[in-house]
Amino acid sequence: MTKGFKMDHADWLRSELKPLTESLGFRYTPREELEDRLSRLRGHMERAGIESLLVVQKMDLYYLSGTTQDGLLFIPLEGKPLLMIRRELERARLESPLDKIVGLKSTRDLPSLIRNHWGRLPRVLGLPMDVLPVRDYLRYQEIFSDSKFIDSSWVMRDTRKIKSLFEIDLMRAGAEIGRKVYQEAKTILKEGMTEIEFGGLLEAAAKRHGHEGLLRVRSLNYEAYSWHVLSGLSGGIVSQSDSPMGGLGLSPAFPVGASLRSMRAHEPILVDFGICYHGYQVDETRMFSIGKMGKKFSDAYKACREIHDAVLDETRPGADCEALFQKGIQIAEKLDYKEIYLGPPGLQTRFIAHGIGLELNEPPFLAQGHAYPLERGMTFALEPKIVFPGEGAVGFENTVLVTQEGHEVLTPLEEDIYQI
Amino acid sequence: MTKGFKMDHADWLRSELKPLTESLGFRYTPREELEDRLSRLRGHMERAGIESLLVVQKMDLYYLSGTTQDGLLFIPLEGKPLLMIRRELERARLESPLDKIVGLKSTRDLPSLIRNHWGRLPRVLGLPMDVLPVRDYLRYQEIFSDSKFIDSSWVMRDTRKIKSLFEIDLMRAGAEIGRKVYQEAKTILKEGMTEIEFGGLLEAAAKRHGHEGLLRVRSLNYEAYSWHVLSGLSGGIVSQSDSPMGGLGLSPAFPVGASLRSMRAHEPILVDFGICYHGYQVDETRMFSIGKMGKKFSDAYKACREIHDAVLDETRPGADCEALFQKGIQIAEKLDYKEIYLGPPGLQTRFIAHGIGLELNEPPFLAQGHAYPLERGMTFALEPKIVFPGEGAVGFENTVLVTQEGHEVLTPLEEDIYQI
Repeated sequence: MTKGFKMDHADWLRSELKPLTESLGFRYTPREELEDRLSRLRGHMERAGIESLLVVQKMDLYYLSGTTQDGLLFIPLEGKPLLMIRRELERARLESPLDKIVGLKSTRDLPSLIRNHWGRLPRVLGLPMDVLPVRDYLRYQEIFSDSKFIDSSWVMRDTRKIKSLFEIDLMRAGAEIGRKVYQEAKTILKEGMTEIEFGGLLEAAAKRHGHEGLLRVRSLNYEAYSWHVLSGLSGGIVSQSDSPMGGLGLSPAFPVGASLRSMRAHEPILVDFGICYHGYQVDETRMFSIGKMGKKFSDAYKACREIHDAVLDETRPGADCEALFQKGIQIAEKLDYKEIYLGPPGLQTRFIAHGIGLELNEPPFLAQGHAYPLERGMTFALEPKIVFPGEGAVGFENTVLVTQEGHEVLTPLEEDIYQI
Repeated sequence: MTKGFKMDHADWLRSELKPLTESLGFRYTPREELEDRLSRLRGHMERAGIESLLVVQKMDLYYLSGTTQDGLLFIPLEGKPLLMIRRELERARLESPLDKIVGLKSTRDLPSLIRNHWGRLPRVLGLPMDVLPVRDYLRYQEIFSDSKFIDSSWVMRDTRKIKSLFEIDLMRAGAEIGRKVYQEAKTILKEGMTEIEFGGLLEAAAKRHGHEGLLRVRSLNYEAYSWHVLSGLSGGIVSQSDSPMGGLGLSPAFPVGASLRSMRAHEPILVDFGICYHGYQVDETRMFSIGKMGKKFSDAYKACREIHDAVLDETRPGADCEALFQKGIQIAEKLDYKEIYLGPPGLQTRFIAHGIGLELNEPPFLAQGHAYPLERGMTFALEPKIVFPGEGAVGFENTVLVTQEGHEVLTPLEEDIYQI
């Protein structure tokens, strides 16, 4: 007997994990919620001619199973889904309300597990080609040598883009964390503090309230982070990201976001902060200043609010996403900011809003070339910004829900400019 | 003329970015450093029969170009590399010492850019199949329809696994940030504080000293983070990650690391903290306690240190990685911890160290099945841990450099157990 080793991991989990985590605020996805999601997914699968799909990406897995334990989920058009878990099986069984959850020792075992569960192997298997690494794909081709593979990325993304009440509740809870953080921010900000110290302390405050710390983007190289704090000239610099401004960052390896630059009085300080709660993200941008912000910047900030409000006015089911983007440009032009709206001249981004939920780059995109209608239950982050190259940036951003009647701002403004 | 818009983005960058960022501590990769790396890479390419490769992943790009701006790097076996940048071109030109840097408007332009530069299209093109999404791969197959594609992941990883003095210097600077954070940690920790509040404040302290905040893993689903703070029973729980203990985390969407559980007196509090400086990571684990830690845990901690030191004793160029892993198991067995060494019974991980650098899962792995020798310039995080299911975990971890003579601990221990 090993020294002092008293219990079995699985026994302990089964007796303790759920009550303990629920007392700490965990909300597990209810069975009916998963069934609704599954049924909508199957509608999309049927239209796309996908008789089965394999869920391999973490957020897709969470959405359809309620767990993010390491594993794969097989979903046939008819019949029960099969959740196969590498690690940790007992924890997945507690987290997911699905009926069929088994262990997965090796990818080699996939065909036998699926055949046992479903009676046969898939003729057509959907895989998310937008994120699946080639090496895994080649392995699946070997294992399912008689199957035809179809890209199922859009089937997943189309399902996920309409949020349920359960999901909106989680986003509201995230927004509430954001509200508290911005409230505390005024007591944290000090003249001479570096951008990264301010960003770090905001993030620490957010975590204290339950922010998960990691933001998620569906991409090989794109990275998201909470500490996008850009003061003065830092706001006037573009970087690798598809964003109106990138900031200096901390090194050539992370040339975005907050830097070791000290923040000064009267500069615009842009804080673009994302919160993640139970996987669901909300994104908002607020302006800070130490003493009064220079008039040029506060005028431009007012213009951002005017653009934001005008786009919001037309936000309702049926509104065309590209037309909303164009609306923003028209107002920027009218207010004489067209050249530096959404980025410096020649480097302007071509979206005013990105869908948001489990990932920061979900549909819908209020953007050039995105001529499709808004639908009830969509959520997006609306973020008009104005950039003075080498001088500074201002902007305003809220996370917005499309409702039956029009819209609801999930992250309402508490103060106009947060001035200390 | 737009209101108050005074300068051109590119002009401003060219005159200001380098002196400004250097005054903030940025270190740009020198040309000779890149040339050494390129020459070692080409040795591996030649042996693997890869006449050219396309660098598509952010850390590979940083390693071989000095920039992480959004783009692609074409490397022929002979002739100059060609860096093609989507965003932001002028910034990449300042960050990278490479000679040939051009803009990339569309992936469609790749063949003409490469033909102009190199005189022809590749017969064989290496791509990192371990991370490249299938959709991008299919696109490259279309564009380079006469090329043969080869997986170049291992060519990159084999080059990167040997660190230069420049890289080791950056890791030392990261270790120095870690030293400061653990020093401050004793003044931050309070009885009753939640794990996540402690983790958030440690991360904020680290950022204040220049920690970049994002840790990086080469994987579709594996996520890394700094706030792995596990108190008492939180340390006795395994989760999705290939780690001896996972913690409770904050929700089923993030079921790892620090939770909203309040830390109590006499519990073992395990802090496994990663620092990222200029892209280079160091990883270390230290034990904390409020008042004296229970004897069972401090005894197990001593065992971890004994295992750590014994493996370190045999760490030198030529030592076999699997044999070092087995050495750890032998000592755990001798000390009567075998069943709960590296995880609860049945859930034990099969590595005692992972290579570390730009990513947290680099070679070498001191692990089962990894029978290859250590080489001078390799760096790894050595982390023996002992887990009491449902009760708590203890462990010890340092980032280690393999030197000509043996080894050097980059993260030396300042205090044994950090007790407040």
